[in-house]
Amino acid sequence: MRQKKILIAQGGGPTMVINQSLTGIIFEAKKKNYKSIGAFNGVNGIINSKFINLDKISKENLETIAKTPGAALGSTRDKPDEEYCEKILQIIKKNKIEKFFYIGGNDSSDSLRIISERTKEINYSLQCIHVPKTIDNDLVLNDHTPGYGSASKYVASVFAGVNLDVNSLPGVYIGVVMGRHAGFLTASSSLLKKNFLDGPNFIYLPECNFDMESFLNDVERFYRKYGKCIIAVSEGIHDKKGILIAEKFKKINEKDSHGNIQLSGSGSLGDYLSNQIKSKLGIKRVRADTLGYMQRSFLGIASEIDQKEAYLIGKAAVKISSKHPKSFSVSIKERRFNSLTPYRFEISTNNLYDIAGKTKFIPVSMINKAQNNVNKIFKQYALPLIGTKIPIFGSLT
Amino acid sequence: MRQKKILIAQGGGPTMVINQSLTGIIFEAKKKNYKSIGAFNGVNGIINSKFINLDKISKENLETIAKTPGAALGSTRDKPDEEYCEKILQIIKKNKIEKFFYIGGNDSSDSLRIISERTKEINYSLQCIHVPKTIDNDLVLNDHTPGYGSASKYVASVFAGVNLDVNSLPGVYIGVVMGRHAGFLTASSSLLKKNFLDGPNFIYLPECNFDMESFLNDVERFYRKYGKCIIAVSEGIHDKKGILIAEKFKKINEKDSHGNIQLSGSGSLGDYLSNQIKSKLGIKRVRADTLGYMQRSFLGIASEIDQKEAYLIGKAAVKISSKHPKSFSVSIKERRFNSLTPYRFEISTNNLYDIAGKTKFIPVSMINKAQNNVNKIFKQYALPLIGTKIPIFGSLT
Repeated sequence: MRQKKILIAQGGGPTMVINQSLTGIIFEAKKKNYKSIGAFNGVNGIINSKFINLDKISKENLETIAKTPGAALGSTRDKPDEEYCEKILQIIKKNKIEKFFYIGGNDSSDSLRIISERTKEINYSLQCIHVPKTIDNDLVLNDHTPGYGSASKYVASVFAGVNLDVNSLPGVYIGVVMGRHAGFLTASSSLLKKNFLDGPNFIYLPECNFDMESFLNDVERFYRKYGKCIIAVSEGIHDKKGILIAEKFKKINEKDSHGNIQLSGSGSLGDYLSNQIKSKLGIKRVRADTLGYMQRSFLGIASEIDQKEAYLIGKAAVKISSKHPKSFSVSIKERRFNSLTPYRFEISTNNLYDIAGKTKFIPVSMINKAQNNVNKIFKQYALPLIGTKIPIFGSLT
Repeated sequence: MRQKKILIAQGGGPTMVINQSLTGIIFEAKKKNYKSIGAFNGVNGIINSKFINLDKISKENLETIAKTPGAALGSTRDKPDEEYCEKILQIIKKNKIEKFFYIGGNDSSDSLRIISERTKEINYSLQCIHVPKTIDNDLVLNDHTPGYGSASKYVASVFAGVNLDVNSLPGVYIGVVMGRHAGFLTASSSLLKKNFLDGPNFIYLPECNFDMESFLNDVERFYRKYGKCIIAVSEGIHDKKGILIAEKFKKINEKDSHGNIQLSGSGSLGDYLSNQIKSKLGIKRVRADTLGYMQRSFLGIASEIDQKEAYLIGKAAVKISSKHPKSFSVSIKERRFNSLTPYRFEISTNNLYDIAGKTKFIPVSMINKAQNNVNKIFKQYALPLIGTKIPIFGSLT
């Protein structure tokens, strides 16, 4: 029997578990007797014919790679236009690829949608399968995305630790969290809170309008009463006109190839907010940390639930593709919320066109009235995703 | 028999294992039938008579607290002057305290030295025992200090993860690490490097003079050749005149009560270096993260070696104090370097006057000739301290 050739690539920002999906695809493809080819650096590796025969990688090595953060195949921020797509398809056709698995977020799924459309136009039979990953958790029609649980565990661990630190040496602390449009990861800062006074005491999301006066009021009121204030802020907070707070004062507005302004890899938003508190409220001890690339690549604390799901969704993508010839996006089926039923992981599929380039936001039902925190429904939603291997911690009083 | 009263306090920046030393002291004091009293917020809690009866805390709770980052008793940045010391001694005398255990770094040991001197002057018999802790690892006559190993494990894990991330999406990455005068923690960024190309590719320490031109040359040369460059920078880098690079452009130079300029809790140094690379070298993808408070308080990754040593040094402090009536600083005995002998933890004591307020630096023998990295001797020195529970990670090629 002729061996079907499949192509696998990874796109967008890496996560702690993106290689679980990669190995899930490879292991399942082996079972189906497919020939697995990897493209280095996403779609960029395709047009430059940078390929690797993934069948040659040993089982042991693949098992190690699965646990490794960062995209093992390399990633890209390239967003294919018509000409780029033409090249991709020429190479894919030349190499007789029958299925293309692209592991990525909403930008990558949009690239895949464009490729998939072009395939029909040139009448070449290529099945395009989008395998989701993003720490931002912003893919529509997905309960959550692989990568989010581990990033959440990191962010929650940062804030739980910082809370203990601020309890030792009181003051104001601001932590700036990744997530340009969706505040899920910022909200995860609250997942290891035990008591009312534990930080984060306020959470500012990109789903709400950020008002400097209300922010300073919140901080002042809390700090004057309790002698501390821990704040989680999304990098994507914006005013009521939609203008990014980070954009208001930034000198170098580097944009990526998707037209997005650089928010990560800079401490300026945290410093700006910190200086506002120092100068306007006269509070002396104010610290701001930008959580940075560790959120998606820190070594050694991936959520075991996230690892398992990322692996299974990779396997499922191959299984489903072998039964249904159409292009699709594999997804984690959305839950109905009911605190009586334990968390359940269920796989479904969606039409590529319904996922691609769209953004999911935190639903209003998870945000408090004052729009400066999340509520219990968010915790019920997100807590199972960080897994159960959470260290214990305590206090004298 | 009359029960001896001992006082315990914690000073300076907390660590992931400072509560191991606290519980080590309490458990050993129990054995000796001492009565353990804790002062909240270091010396500040003494003058305000904020005490806690530590004998009432259950064994189970203490065991949980031992594993908890942050100072369970609270900490302080207060540095006692003559009047402050007078107050401390009045309270200590009134409460008939016989031994005072102060867990802290070099600022705290200096506070203890001043108190100990005053004790002699007023002819009150108080034994002052300094129990070391600092992530900076900058105490003289100590092989290393409790807290450093866990902070090192965090920093090494950040850079190992970031290296995998940068391999996925190439560019320049700068990570700013804590350590005002001593570069030990910055140097720890290299501990999980496997190959030459792995980051950090350059390490800039406060032990060397920072020259912007050499820095830009290093980055350009490496980036043009290998398409990536990962840099670890100490927050305390300074020019040949000793002027902090962070000070050169900072608007708000907040100083703490020890007269130190605020370096942590701000992303400005990283952003400054990042903008230099962007503007002078024309490299587009440059990211800077400031590793922040997570270095000393991150939840769940303490080094098991560090935990054990911090606990044992607390116990040893009590044991030694019961045999020798003089004030002292308990220490981890300095090693002779010999790659043939495995790492060994040995306790010794030092005179308070020989430790207090002094700073230990990375020895020249651990720094490379170009002064932009550390060498094998550093790795041999520091690697055992992060413990053995290091996650495996791999690559396809």
